[in-house]
Amino acid sequence: MKLLRYGPPGQEKPGLLDADGQIRDLSGVVPDLAGEVLSDEGLARLAALDPTTLPMVGGDPRLGPPVAGMKNFVCIGLNYADHAAETGAAIPKEPIVFLKSLGALQGPNDDVEIAPDSVKTDWEVELAVIIGTRAKRVSEADAMAHVAGYAVCNDVSEREWQAERGGTWDKGKGHDTFGPLGPWLVTRDEVPDPQNLSMFCEVDGHRYQDGSTRTMIFGVEKLVSYVSHFITLHPGDVISTGTPPGVGLGQKPPVYLKVGQTIRLGIQGLGEQTQKTVQG
Amino acid sequence: MKLLRYGPPGQEKPGLLDADGQIRDLSGVVPDLAGEVLSDEGLARLAALDPTTLPMVGGDPRLGPPVAGMKNFVCIGLNYADHAAETGAAIPKEPIVFLKSLGALQGPNDDVEIAPDSVKTDWEVELAVIIGTRAKRVSEADAMAHVAGYAVCNDVSEREWQAERGGTWDKGKGHDTFGPLGPWLVTRDEVPDPQNLSMFCEVDGHRYQDGSTRTMIFGVEKLVSYVSHFITLHPGDVISTGTPPGVGLGQKPPVYLKVGQTIRLGIQGLGEQTQKTVQG
Repeated sequence: MKLLRYGPPGQEKPGLLDADGQIRDLSGVVPDLAGEVLSDEGLARLAALDPTTLPMVGGDPRLGPPVAGMKNFVCIGLNYADHAAETGAAIPKEPIVFLKSLGALQGPNDDVEIAPDSVKTDWEVELAVIIGTRAKRVSEADAMAHVAGYAVCNDVSEREWQAERGGTWDKGKGHDTFGPLGPWLVTRDEVPDPQNLSMFCEVDGHRYQDGSTRTMIFGVEKLVSYVSHFITLHPGDVISTGTPPGVGLGQKPPVYLKVGQTIRLGIQGLGEQTQKTVQG
Repeated sequence: MKLLRYGPPGQEKPGLLDADGQIRDLSGVVPDLAGEVLSDEGLARLAALDPTTLPMVGGDPRLGPPVAGMKNFVCIGLNYADHAAETGAAIPKEPIVFLKSLGALQGPNDDVEIAPDSVKTDWEVELAVIIGTRAKRVSEADAMAHVAGYAVCNDVSEREWQAERGGTWDKGKGHDTFGPLGPWLVTRDEVPDPQNLSMFCEVDGHRYQDGSTRTMIFGVEKLVSYVSHFITLHPGDVISTGTPPGVGLGQKPPVYLKVGQTIRLGIQGLGEQTQKTVQG
């Protein structure tokens, strides 16, 4: 099942994508894609609906992030061995965890801002795990039962702010527009093996990232369990699981985003995002 | 004006403290202490009320965090020169910025959890700045106009998770119960000089922290402006501005919290918090 939220920013309605790729309105069924709606029971109720009985949504509406009510936008750093190598960093012994500002969250195709004083804005295609039920100190064996599904995330990053301005990485990860998520939440049952998904990111048609979740250092089960020991995860929370090689920082010489470019990224079975870069 | 939220977790109502220290119910006036209610105009409307006309709240209700709708729980690290020295860290050249999980936010007197595998849970009394209006790339000269007021924050920290488990500090700062805030939001007009407030923290009656916001490296104006260049601040957001010397990590030998202790902390003019430590 592919669940989504459509409409203007802050006024999104819940919907699902039917077998013909048409958006069907769920706002008569659930208030939003949040809280208990994301539990296995909540998702089973949506799966039991006949999509053809739901109102079809015409036109080509903007998509928002596919979940609401997020408390934690967790990201994992340097979680692909070959990406760690391209940035000159050591392979982490434990997952590197940081938080992205909730203000960075946006729809999958919304513009990405280049801040006036930014010279190193960079892209990162990532598999985002979307939490379905509260997870506090869960084991790896139990972790998947807390996962609602998956989505594409662009963990947009400002490398100077992240690495050259002192302190933790959070400064370089939380700017407005730095967290496109979507186009949809693909439920767990449709992604039997999250550790074998091809993924890519292109800028103006040049393919910079061309990887697979196969080369993750710490997989989804490990990450959900690990994070839940430090930070309790709630329905709608996201763990964005790190990026494969090919970021701008890793090019020789490095390549960063400029105003007026187009970023296109996607993950096998989870859809694609397209963002324009604009002056922030 | 001292604004607060009272009632069970997740069901708090807005209130204010009258001249006699009695809670008066604001739920007939505003839906919550969030969004536009925290703007200068919104606060002026509350200040124009005669508190004696508002319903008195009897008993001794639990207090929640004094604001709702937070998007960013920003913290500043090593922002007191003498605290940086006690932890063995260099004086930062720029503010160290990290994010605390919104799940850590709680009332000022709610219990603090010691996690089963925690051996280094520590206290940090901090001046929390509460944002009143959206701030994106604001100058230092304009910064104070975006501040609604101040509160006490205990930036509870697990030092092993923060510093010995790889990556950024966020792991050690975001556990459930690690963000007591309150007892009230004291509006800006009642705190003419936020850089001259005495502050303390005691554990089981022993005074470990006894400092003043006078020794901050980066003051409130600088911090609001600085953070707003990276992360847009929204009404109800908090910047907790760092802690003075006397944390457990800084004792010789270090002293950490155990189950069954009482933490009491306060800041001049902003009230006090008392937390019991419990098994998490």
